[in-house]
Formats: sequence, structure tokens, C-alpha cells
Amino acid sequence: MDTATIAATAAEAVRRCRELAECTEEPGVTTRTFLSAPMHDVHARVTRWMQAAGMTVAVDAAGNIRGVYPGTATRPARLYIGSHLDTVPGAGAFDGILGVMLGLALVESLGGRRLPFAIEVVGFSEEEGVRFGTPFIGSRALAGTLDGALLSRQDASGRTVSDAIRAFGLDPSRVGEACVAPDALGYLEFHIEQGPVLDGRGLPLGVVDAIAGQSRLMLTFSGATNHAGTTPMTMRRDALAGAAEWITAVERTAATIEGLAATVGHVQATPSVVNMIVGRCDVSLDVRHREDQARLRAYDSLLRLAGEIATRRGLVLAYEHHLDQRATPMDAALTTLLATAVESTGAPVAHLTSGAGHDAMILACRLPAAMLFLRSPGGVSHHPDETVHETDVAAALTAGLRFLDLLAAAQP
Amino acid sequence: MDTATIAATAAEAVRRCRELAECTEEPGVTTRTFLSAPMHDVHARVTRWMQAAGMTVAVDAAGNIRGVYPGTATRPARLYIGSHLDTVPGAGAFDGILGVMLGLALVESLGGRRLPFAIEVVGFSEEEGVRFGTPFIGSRALAGTLDGALLSRQDASGRTVSDAIRAFGLDPSRVGEACVAPDALGYLEFHIEQGPVLDGRGLPLGVVDAIAGQSRLMLTFSGATNHAGTTPMTMRRDALAGAAEWITAVERTAATIEGLAATVGHVQATPSVVNMIVGRCDVSLDVRHREDQARLRAYDSLLRLAGEIATRRGLVLAYEHHLDQRATPMDAALTTLLATAVESTGAPVAHLTSGAGHDAMILACRLPAAMLFLRSPGGVSHHPDETVHETDVAAALTAGLRFLDLLAAAQP
Repeated sequence: MDTATIAATAAEAVRRCRELAECTEEPGVTTRTFLSAPMHDVHARVTRWMQAAGMTVAVDAAGNIRGVYPGTATRPARLYIGSHLDTVPGAGAFDGILGVMLGLALVESLGGRRLPFAIEVVGFSEEEGVRFGTPFIGSRALAGTLDGALLSRQDASGRTVSDAIRAFGLDPSRVGEACVAPDALGYLEFHIEQGPVLDGRGLPLGVVDAIAGQSRLMLTFSGATNHAGTTPMTMRRDALAGAAEWITAVERTAATIEGLAATVGHVQATPSVVNMIVGRCDVSLDVRHREDQARLRAYDSLLRLAGEIATRRGLVLAYEHHLDQRATPMDAALTTLLATAVESTGAPVAHLTSGAGHDAMILACRLPAAMLFLRSPGGVSHHPDETVHETDVAAALTAGLRFLDLLAAAQP
Repeated sequence: MDTATIAATAAEAVRRCRELAECTEEPGVTTRTFLSAPMHDVHARVTRWMQAAGMTVAVDAAGNIRGVYPGTATRPARLYIGSHLDTVPGAGAFDGILGVMLGLALVESLGGRRLPFAIEVVGFSEEEGVRFGTPFIGSRALAGTLDGALLSRQDASGRTVSDAIRAFGLDPSRVGEACVAPDALGYLEFHIEQGPVLDGRGLPLGVVDAIAGQSRLMLTFSGATNHAGTTPMTMRRDALAGAAEWITAVERTAATIEGLAATVGHVQATPSVVNMIVGRCDVSLDVRHREDQARLRAYDSLLRLAGEIATRRGLVLAYEHHLDQRATPMDAALTTLLATAVESTGAPVAHLTSGAGHDAMILACRLPAAMLFLRSPGGVSHHPDETVHETDVAAALTAGLRFLDLLAAAQP
């Protein structure tokens, strides 16, 4: 395929992302949670594009849209290529969506040429965890791990995942049928990096070696609410002052451990008024590392530090573990194939750990998974300013086509 | 008056505070904002008690209830004794209310005996600033500083102070008539300390020498919202981490300046979710000191520190001054009389600076003002656990009666 056609296909993929960003629950911004009304419109458009590319399209019982491009073998094995179509509130146009549009663009770029294996492009219904407070509803259905407990989880209005599926016109009792075929070849996901690393190094693409493990913790520092004017500094048990000391220590500790990301993203003071000493301060901790041991050591040490600060200040510390997710290595063989494909396009091969969770992490427990990151200009994501260079999309498309050829050549 | 009668009168004052705490906007807790419906009930009860003590009762156009106990002189000058009847949300029973009940108890304790001057007991309609975001609506009317700008200030539902006055059955155009008489002798206020100092020193009463000046500041640290998993620690502009460093520094700085209270009571992170770096963090600063120069120096130094932290971290700092209120000394002669009265009861005389603003601060610009603090057990205030010892109320009543006699003796 010539570079001009590649460039045009890449430009069209970007244009489609921007078009889908207009399907939203909130006028003026892009917000599209699990099976919300605008997802019907997204499915209608994606269906048209998939069918035009020669694919057979269906929506499974978890609300994933799935287009199958047949292979030449009698009973062709299947390569899955996908990402998610839901968004965070006030999202950009590319997080997730670009991976689906690139899967579609790859099939289009085959121009009708068949490979020994079938390609199934999947647009997952849910990855962000916004509506039900738990992510990966779509990819869990393909991995066969979307169980009853998850289906009966409720959103803010008390509707369950099953209710949402039914309201979308689907049948939650058929979720089991969404599971991937047993002879699946693997899963490939394109995704924007959502971070500044590739941009900082001036690289268009990055091969993901592993998805970092995550620990999440909610902590509560409790002291004594009192009057800001009448309580001498020496007689205070200020929960916010304690939390602030700890937040500063989290940042300082994280800076000493290579590859560690430790973030206090949530803070809530009670009361939170100018003339009262804060009696209770809730804070969150998010710790990530590609190595589980390093992550767990950091987690333990930050929790111990919180306890020490609380004790010294006469505060009470309470905490609750919210997540403990192991690191997920990508499939070695498929990742080597992907790196070879990138290399053969002449681009330098960067290897990255993904600090964010992705659908590939869920599918990796079921089938070989590989992931390719595209540079995020400015590292911006989960924000309307999130963007992508068209030339990087073209580079990803070129590498993807090489990957398909290499994979085809490797078939028996 | 014998100590048994004093004790019984003090006990009744405490009982009345607890009774009035049941007049509330929110069942189960005590919340009574400016001229809210339960204030009608409070006025009905206070009117009954005042009339039984031989007082003539009226409610002025700012909603202050005012009971006058006549003096013996032909045109008797007037001593005002008062505090406020409104509360913060989820309040205790004594903040403000006890001062009004003690004024009433003093008149009752006179047992019909007349003094050369008249006594006017005032229950102010508003001191806490909850409903309209600005405090002292009641005492400003007596000081003659409740102006048009304040009357047209709106609450959360868009109703003005004037609307609230009309809805309560009063006429806002007559607010000017609420001003104190030109020949007023002075203003005396009893109030719980709302802090731990007297309790820490084992003292029942404290004579207030001055009300501390206050500066308030709202600061915004702005950085970059980004993904907690994908943004390396070295590439972050974390607004919460910057704010936390500053909060820690505020506390450390305040500890080095004798008599300074510096509080960060409000914090608001945007976004405030576990897996995002905070892009914007709003914090408040409340600085108080009995000396204006010390307060202003601390304020300038903390603001400069915020700027240095922001610059070093690549954050942008914005700020807004919200309050700059000078320290208010109490009237020297009246305060000496009050200290003498306390001393003559055999109690040790403690002199305090009030860290909190009080109605006495507003009235001090119009007439000589003095203030007596009662110990706050545990320093607790603005909380349902706020309490007072009945023996301290009896001590305040005894001192108050001595004060009246000393003042009477000092009349020409």
C-alpha cells in the first residue's frame, strides 16, 4: 500500500474519531458512559463503516460491537483487534476510539485481500468504569469474566448493569455467548499512550511490554473539628495538616523509587470552610509499578508513614484497600512480532510499561495479547485537548499491516 | 443574692439554652440561620421570659429581639447586654444563646430592684454569617452599619436580606430605627470561649482584652490534570502536591509566631478522583493575631511562600483577598470594671484575646464594649457536643451582678 493511501486512511481514522466525539450525553463536551443513548448512534456509524469494509457486524449481549472479516482457511482462527468506545466525562476524541478506528482502517487497508486468519474488530462498550464504578465491562464479556455479581452492580440511579443492557435492547442472559472463540490467535490493541513519555522522547510509537500493577487505598485522617480563631496552634488536631504532611511525603517517597507512580488524586476535607479546623480528611492513594514486589513495598511503606504521621499528631488513621491488581505482562511471542513489525517500518522501537489499565490487560488472561501505543502530544488525555498526530496514526497503520503479514506468514 | 439562688438561676439559663436548641430548621440537629422559621418560636419563648422578668419586649426591623428593663433615673442611660440567637448548621446549644440567657438571668437576679440605668437585653438575629455569607447582620443594625448593599445581598436561593426580613413579618425600611441610643452606657457580652485556653488553665472565666484581627485569603494552585498511571513523577505539575507542601509550611510558620493562628480550613481539588493528577487546588487561609502588624507580616510571608512553591513546581498561583479586619480592643474602662467585678467574686482574673469575631466587635465602633468569656469544656464549639459548666454560668452571673453594681456606683 502506498504512503499516500496510508496517509489518507490514517486521516480518515482521525476524522472518524472526531465525528464519534459528537455522540455525547452532554452537549458541548464528550461524555459517553456504558450503553448510554449516544452509543446507539456510535454503533450505527461504526456498523456502516465496517460493512463497507466487507465485515459482518453484530452487537453482543454486553453491548460490544463486533465486525468479522473472514479468513481464507476452512476454519480460520481469529485475530481480535479492539479497544473501547465509551469515554470519561468531558473526554477527548481518541482514548479507546482510535484503537477501534485503527482496527477498521487495517481491514480497509487490506483492500479485500484475505489472510489465512479471520480478523474481528471489537469496539468495547465499557472500559472507563464511570457509570458503574468498575471498569472493563466490555472486555470482561470477551474474557468470560463478566459474572452475576458484576451484572447486578448498580449505577448512581440504582439501575443494574443488566438493566442497562436491557434498556439498550440487548439480553443480559446471553452475555456468556460474547466469549472469544477457543482457537483465537490473539488480541492486538492500539491505544494512545495517555502520557508524556513518547512525546518527550520524540517517538511516534511504543511497544507495550507490560501493564503496571495497581494498588488503591482510601485513607481517613480524623482529628478534631474546631474554631480556627480560638484554638491555639499547639492545641490542634488538624486532619488536613496531617493529610498534607503525608501527601508531601508520598511525592517525596515516589521520587526515590524508579518507575513508581504514586498519586494522591482525591482529597475531601470535612468540614471544608475557611474558619474551621478540618476534623476529617479523606485522601486516596494510587500506586503503580511494573513489578508487583516494588509496588507492594511502596504501598506498605506509604501506609506505615501515614500511621506514623497520624500517631505523632494525635490523629486517628483508618484505611480501606480498594484495588490490588497484579502487573500483566503482554504475550512475549506476539509482542516480539509487533516490535519486529514496527522495526521493519524503519521507526525506532521503544518499549514501555503501560501505567494505565487497558482492555488488553483483561484479555491477556484468556489469549495472547499485544499492545501498541501511539504518542500523546503533550501527554494530554481524559481532556478535550487530547489529540494525536496523523503521521503517528499512519505509522501505526503501517506497522499494523506489517504485523498482519508477519502473523500470516507464521501460520502453519 | 444567695449562692443557692444564683445556682438555680444559672441552671435555668442552661436549661433555656437547651430548650431553644430544639427550635431548628433540621430535625435532630440545631440549625437556625437568619430569620428562619424556628426563630419565631425562639422569639415567642424569649418574649415570655423577658416579660416575666419585668421587661418591655420588641423585635426590631433587623429581627433582633430587645427587652428593656427600666432604670430609676428620669432619662436613664442604657446598658446593652446581648449576644446572638442564630446558629451554625449542626450547632451546640450555647454559642451566642448563653449570652442572651445570661443577660436575662441578670435582670431576673435583680428581683425587681432598679438601677440608675436601664438595661436592654438584645438577642441578635444573626452573627454566624451562614445564610448570606456575611456575619453580624443583627449587631450591624444596632451599630448603624446595616446598609443597602448588605440588605440586598442574596442567599443561595436568590432571596435578599430585605426579602428575609419581610418574610419574617418585619419592615426592612425601618432598619435605621434599630440603632442604639446616643446616650448608651456601653455593651456587655457574655460568650463561651469556643476554645480550649480557659479549660486548659482550669479557669471558669476570662476577661477579653481585644478581638483579634483577621485576614482571609483564597488561593488557587493550577497545574496540569493528567493520568495518574501514565505521567512519570518527574513530568507532573500536581496542584494538590503543591498545595499540600504549602499547607505544611503554613502550620510550621504559624508555630514560630507567638499568638498567631493560621488555618487552612478549606481545600477543593479539581478533579478529585483516585486515578487523576489534580490540576487545580483551591485552598483558604485564615490568619489571626491580636496585633495587626504581626498578622499582616505573617499573611505576607505565607502568601510569598505560596508563590515560591508554585514557581518551583511550575504551577500558577492566583489569589483573592477576602477579609482584612483590624484587631478590636475592648473599652479600657468598662473592661477594668469587668475585671474588678470578676476579681471581687474571688475568681482569678484571666485576660484573653478573642480569636473569634463577636457582636461586641461590631458594637465597639459605636459604644464602649466589654466581653466576658466562659470556659468551653474541651474547647468544643460549633458542634452538638458544645457545653458549659453550670458552676461557670453561676460564676459569670455573680460577676455580672457585681459589674452592674460597680457600674451603678460609678454613675453620676
